[in-house]
Amino acid sequence: MQSQHRTTADVTTADVVVVGAGVIGAAIAWRCAQRRIAVVTVDPDPTRGAWHTAAGMLAPVTELQYTETPLLHLNLDSLRRWPAFAAELAAELGADERAVGLRRTGTVLVAWDAADLAALRDLHAFGQRFDIASILIGGRDLRGLEPALAAGLPGGLHAPDDHQVDPRLLRDALARAGRRRGVRHVTAEVTRVRTTGDRVEGVDLADGTTLAAPVVVLAAGAWSGTLAGPPPGAVPAVRPVKGQTLRLRLPGTPVLNHVVRGRVKGNPIYLVPRADGRIVVGASTEEAGFDRSARAGAVYELLRDAQSLLPELGEAELAEISTGLRPGSPDNAPLVGASGALGGLVVATGHYRNGVLLTPVTADGVAALLADGALPDVLHPFAPDRFERIPA
Amino acid sequence: MQSQHRTTADVTTADVVVVGAGVIGAAIAWRCAQRRIAVVTVDPDPTRGAWHTAAGMLAPVTELQYTETPLLHLNLDSLRRWPAFAAELAAELGADERAVGLRRTGTVLVAWDAADLAALRDLHAFGQRFDIASILIGGRDLRGLEPALAAGLPGGLHAPDDHQVDPRLLRDALARAGRRRGVRHVTAEVTRVRTTGDRVEGVDLADGTTLAAPVVVLAAGAWSGTLAGPPPGAVPAVRPVKGQTLRLRLPGTPVLNHVVRGRVKGNPIYLVPRADGRIVVGASTEEAGFDRSARAGAVYELLRDAQSLLPELGEAELAEISTGLRPGSPDNAPLVGASGALGGLVVATGHYRNGVLLTPVTADGVAALLADGALPDVLHPFAPDRFERIPA
Repeated sequence: MQSQHRTTADVTTADVVVVGAGVIGAAIAWRCAQRRIAVVTVDPDPTRGAWHTAAGMLAPVTELQYTETPLLHLNLDSLRRWPAFAAELAAELGADERAVGLRRTGTVLVAWDAADLAALRDLHAFGQRFDIASILIGGRDLRGLEPALAAGLPGGLHAPDDHQVDPRLLRDALARAGRRRGVRHVTAEVTRVRTTGDRVEGVDLADGTTLAAPVVVLAAGAWSGTLAGPPPGAVPAVRPVKGQTLRLRLPGTPVLNHVVRGRVKGNPIYLVPRADGRIVVGASTEEAGFDRSARAGAVYELLRDAQSLLPELGEAELAEISTGLRPGSPDNAPLVGASGALGGLVVATGHYRNGVLLTPVTADGVAALLADGALPDVLHPFAPDRFERIPA
Repeated sequence: MQSQHRTTADVTTADVVVVGAGVIGAAIAWRCAQRRIAVVTVDPDPTRGAWHTAAGMLAPVTELQYTETPLLHLNLDSLRRWPAFAAELAAELGADERAVGLRRTGTVLVAWDAADLAALRDLHAFGQRFDIASILIGGRDLRGLEPALAAGLPGGLHAPDDHQVDPRLLRDALARAGRRRGVRHVTAEVTRVRTTGDRVEGVDLADGTTLAAPVVVLAAGAWSGTLAGPPPGAVPAVRPVKGQTLRLRLPGTPVLNHVVRGRVKGNPIYLVPRADGRIVVGASTEEAGFDRSARAGAVYELLRDAQSLLPELGEAELAEISTGLRPGSPDNAPLVGASGALGGLVVATGHYRNGVLLTPVTADGVAALLADGALPDVLHPFAPDRFERIPA
């Protein structure tokens, strides 16, 4: 077993260097180590990643438009992987699935008005095509499921299998399981990917040292597009998409039983009750570059809409304001697979709003690529160089 | 000159122990040290004091009801002391008044509607009785003074001499000036006031040591009523009154020239532009015991009303949420003077919303009491045992 933090002096070579130790990077490292690949993760501060802000809802349909896209199939594939993924991770740590963050609360989608209720009927029909369980409910049943919600809501859609994962518990569990399997971690900024000819040969760190490896996995989230070294076509086209969430805490017994999602006068809002009693409220979507400061207007709107759904939140403690940068690709779908432009460079980023949901399929896929040489079919549409191949 | 933090081992006796090193305690210590009194201040964490949250407006009339009370005269007396107090403090530090926190911005009281404007006319007339300069202005002049305010406001009242003090700069300056004069500070919790017969003899600290002194000044703000040791009648009757403020930061050049106060649909709100570009927004008033957590509903209301007056605040960074506990007495007026029930105990607390405004008169008064044996007349109505003398 390795210690968590080590200096770079004793880590100079590996089979694979994973740049970024958020949920995606830590999961890839764990899965690779299970296959006896020698992995080093490098990250100056994993908590700056989007996972640290995220609510971690496992809700692949409600995040999508009504089109049967490859992304929907990827989301559903990863959703199906989640129970076994959590069970295996928990088993390696001698824990249960709750300890690694999975919480089986189900989700209630709340209709704000009659038009919303009609939209939820369409969503219900759409979900049935993919065997996603959901039940349309009226106002009385809604109050039965969630008595603390505002009076007068006309009904909603109960999705009993749309669960949640606490990304902070998940990342911690992935890092611990990785360490047990021999994953080494270096706390440092990567300044460039080293190349020789048309292949990677490792990464340079801010302290002047080098990690040598024939394979570099780029899992640096919103920062993945900023790394120096690779030729232009090999750098993933990701941009930061700012998101803010709040963590509120009400005294006494928990008031929410499910993840609650809804729209208040058209503004999407969610309330995710954690096992520790906090409620995660989210999320803004802002294009603001790498600025991670809390914007007053976004906090205001989250508090306003959250109180509209759950009035007693006005009395809650505002325990945390968190701001993260989602990695957005040109089509907001992930970028997973070998770079076409630089040998040994593998990309795993661009997960946008679905990083936690897509963690199992991404980690399984990249480990399969590195151990067996082939990516699962479901990931083929998400090749990182797909935008290069489309005529401008 | 003494070092700021010392262990209790080398501080065992003094002429005066001041319990609490907020703006009131630090100012009393400085004023006493100027008169060659050996002073020790004791505080486990001065930043928990209400001053750290406060906006520091010097606005004695607008905080009051329309009655000519002793408190109004005290407020006006302290307001008149402020320029010389700031000048003297600055001179001792080789700085100017801005460095000790005084910022001469004046205040604009904004009317939200016609009824508000009528109320400001009354306030204008009331202020004239006390030679407080103020000018009634219409909507056009209001936009001229503060172009960034929301469109359509009908007018307001310009109080050119109602300035502001940054309490964080002030407390820092008072502590530094005190140190230069020989004030010693101990970072510790006071567990009880030691008494012998009917006199104080010092204080016991949480680490088991004792500070011996014939005089103890109780300037512990909202915590002043919790100290063990004195007989019941000698403990000041103060309760904590929670207040929340926000600190917002807009990029670029400052958008506000004055302190801006107003009511939005009846809810009072103020915006205080600091020299460093931040805008302090306040303040809630809540009776919640010693709970200092941020309440979501209060943050929401401050953001809502602040944006109503200054719409571009929605784009501001929410840089800080601060919660403080104002020391409120039974009549919300301060408690300053010798305890009638315990010899050597002097009280300086209960300043409620006016601690910064009342710092000069309180510090001058307590120093006069300790050096000359008499409190200024203006403080006589604020004897700490005044409630004991009123028949129930």
